[in-house]
Amino acid sequence: MNLKDQNFLRSTGDRIRDRRSELNLTQAELGEKCELHRTFIGSVERGERNVSILNLRQIAQALRVPIQKLLEAI
Amino acid sequence: MNLKDQNFLRSTGDRIRDRRSELNLTQAELGEKCELHRTFIGSVERGERNVSILNLRQIAQALRVPIQKLLEAI
Repeated sequence: MNLKDQNFLRSTGDRIRDRRSELNLTQAELGEKCELHRTFIGSVERGERNVSILNLRQIAQALRVPIQKLLEAI
Repeated sequence: MNLKDQNFLRSTGDRIRDRRSELNLTQAELGEKCELHRTFIGSVERGERNVSILNLRQIAQALRVPIQKLLEAI
């Protein structure tokens, strides 16, 4: 994974964390809402995981934002 | 995978295929541009694959569209 990829994943993770904080949810609470483990949420937020689009969609739905909002434009 | 997930992946695949056709690229040519195998591109276009966001981003870059354009709003 190159630096651009890492930055892209980190920026996606930051958007998830920001929105989660906005909703006053813990990682565990968000995890429950989207049926993903809190440690998975944590690793996505840290940009450590190349998440699949279905998992990202589940997260977006739990955060009540369009999936597009979680991704940076090129 | 439920029906909604399948529809989401299919709709993403359709957007990729439409844009690829617009650019008059074969699956093999698109594959080369984004360093993914043509059979991988084929399975993504058919909605058979829960693609990762890094691979989707590579495809979007090769298609010269923002990654958001390839994803349906919720």
